[in-house]
Amino acid sequence: MTALKNDRFLRALMRQPVDVTPVWMMRQAGRYLPEYRQTRSRAGDFMGLCTNPELACEVTLQPLERYPLDAAILFSDILTIPDAMGLGLYFEEGEGPRFRKPLRTEADISALEVIDPKHELSYVIDAVTTIRRELNGRVPLIGFSGSPWTLATYMIEGGSSRDFARSKTMLYEQPELMHQLLDVLARSVIAYLNAQIAAGAQAVQIFDTWGGSLSHGAYREFSLSYMRNIVAGLTKESEGRPVPVILFTKGGGQWLESIADSGCDGIGLDWTTDISLARQRVGQKVALQGNMDPAILRASPQRIRQEVAAILRQYGEGEGHIFNLGHGITPDISPEKAGVFVDAVHEYSATYHRKT
Amino acid sequence: MTALKNDRFLRALMRQPVDVTPVWMMRQAGRYLPEYRQTRSRAGDFMGLCTNPELACEVTLQPLERYPLDAAILFSDILTIPDAMGLGLYFEEGEGPRFRKPLRTEADISALEVIDPKHELSYVIDAVTTIRRELNGRVPLIGFSGSPWTLATYMIEGGSSRDFARSKTMLYEQPELMHQLLDVLARSVIAYLNAQIAAGAQAVQIFDTWGGSLSHGAYREFSLSYMRNIVAGLTKESEGRPVPVILFTKGGGQWLESIADSGCDGIGLDWTTDISLARQRVGQKVALQGNMDPAILRASPQRIRQEVAAILRQYGEGEGHIFNLGHGITPDISPEKAGVFVDAVHEYSATYHRKT
Repeated sequence: MTALKNDRFLRALMRQPVDVTPVWMMRQAGRYLPEYRQTRSRAGDFMGLCTNPELACEVTLQPLERYPLDAAILFSDILTIPDAMGLGLYFEEGEGPRFRKPLRTEADISALEVIDPKHELSYVIDAVTTIRRELNGRVPLIGFSGSPWTLATYMIEGGSSRDFARSKTMLYEQPELMHQLLDVLARSVIAYLNAQIAAGAQAVQIFDTWGGSLSHGAYREFSLSYMRNIVAGLTKESEGRPVPVILFTKGGGQWLESIADSGCDGIGLDWTTDISLARQRVGQKVALQGNMDPAILRASPQRIRQEVAAILRQYGEGEGHIFNLGHGITPDISPEKAGVFVDAVHEYSATYHRKT
Repeated sequence: MTALKNDRFLRALMRQPVDVTPVWMMRQAGRYLPEYRQTRSRAGDFMGLCTNPELACEVTLQPLERYPLDAAILFSDILTIPDAMGLGLYFEEGEGPRFRKPLRTEADISALEVIDPKHELSYVIDAVTTIRRELNGRVPLIGFSGSPWTLATYMIEGGSSRDFARSKTMLYEQPELMHQLLDVLARSVIAYLNAQIAAGAQAVQIFDTWGGSLSHGAYREFSLSYMRNIVAGLTKESEGRPVPVILFTKGGGQWLESIADSGCDGIGLDWTTDISLARQRVGQKVALQGNMDPAILRASPQRIRQEVAAILRQYGEGEGHIFNLGHGITPDISPEKAGVFVDAVHEYSATYHRKT
């Protein structure tokens, strides 16, 4: 493989010195970009885009053509694993993801088998290979998966949910059955992420979008413990470098100490967490990724730059910070504003890093 | 006024000794009760129920007939103030609250005036008077209001929102205009709650349902600071007793220290906060109210009792705990399960309190 020309992102994740704070954006390959919408319309629909490695590669690289981002992230969906398990993922416009065959009975759960990503998810693995080739060492490639708890909620509810009524009823009333489901998902995520790493992913992020809906006790038992199992089961090194793991539990700001104990290398923060307090709490142990409110990208360039400067000041001097939004960039943001954000991170952060 | 026969709730809020931990449920007068649904159908619709003091009194008292609750809470809606300001509140089945005339321009905001609750919201004040008379001293009556920030989001968005796009754009792009709106709302909330207290409310709770959507900095500037102004502006004593104030910011568990500094007497906790850690952080300063996940009421009686016991154990010995759910009880819960919850709090908590 080609040598990496920009390794700021990987270095910051390992809390090594960098010249400026690295930056990427969750959902950076997305609907706010006209070129993305154009490729997506050629693909037919969202799943058509996900399952076509050439087109998935194309949209993965689009934001890198516009902005000096320090990482690429595989274009895919967090729900590919349940889809590979036979639940039938589809998207209704404006409605979010849905499953044709949600889990309704104990027999549905017992019938689930650990996926073999080389077979059922070869389109994702092929996309990783293609993207690495096309990236040609510009920046590292991040692989990703949904967390077992987050996947389980979609599989049980059949789609998005406001209060997770079915999932929580199962969690509280049939905890053993929930553990059985989470276990088969965790083993599938390990196989999936290891296949992404083998194909060229240089770091991985686990998206625990709905972990924040749980109590602290339930979070530790039903979400974090499975992410810990995944971290322990992942390939530790590839191409002579460590493969760092980022855990992102949206709404998990109260539980950073528990998350930092999982063995992960970095924690993704949403914007509700004060990053200076987060660094005091866990910054000796892990890198921190985040955490500007994506809503600020609707404001003026001046206001965006002001907020970037404030977050850099809050994190302070030294290593271990990867700048990002606290959640995915939304479709209504203008591409120019995203550029203001990325440039501001590089421009304002140099002063916080010693000459290397 | 009649002497109070059960003052556990007020004593616990002032961190005074009690025999058992007091308990009430957010939305205890609500759709999970068949008698509520019956009264509501007589009223025509939800606003018909809110604006009829006799019927509002009837539903307020219904849960007290079923369960040995330690407080009643005024039946009303958090959006009565914007309705009184002329925005035209209505409810669409399954859609939540809506406004006919949401705030769209600076002129809309400049035109807003501080409400006079004795005129525009006399139906609420009459309901408080009626409920106090009918309660006849059984338990204290809690008055309430939405927080300025939470009211502002509904007024700007026109209803519920997923990401508060308009509100946050105003907050970041026109902070002075947002402050102007929040100021007129805060002054209205003070007048409204003081009128409720004058009519007989013995404690008040401010519901900051959407404060948790903000960053810590924005929360302090745009939500908490106005709740602090309200606390400072409220009548401190009535009928020879202090009138305690509870602040409930859903999703505010990371900011308890800031909230405890507001001058409030109690903090409402949602279920994501570990109540033992919360007590360590702020329990010397304020009482804590909460915080069982309402989803647990879908589980078995045994599981409900187990969770109540766990939360009581986490809070530990001594005063300052008011048991509640971490959010409102949902319409799908069976009334029997709510009864199991209330009884378990009284049964299991005696051991944590010294003989008084």
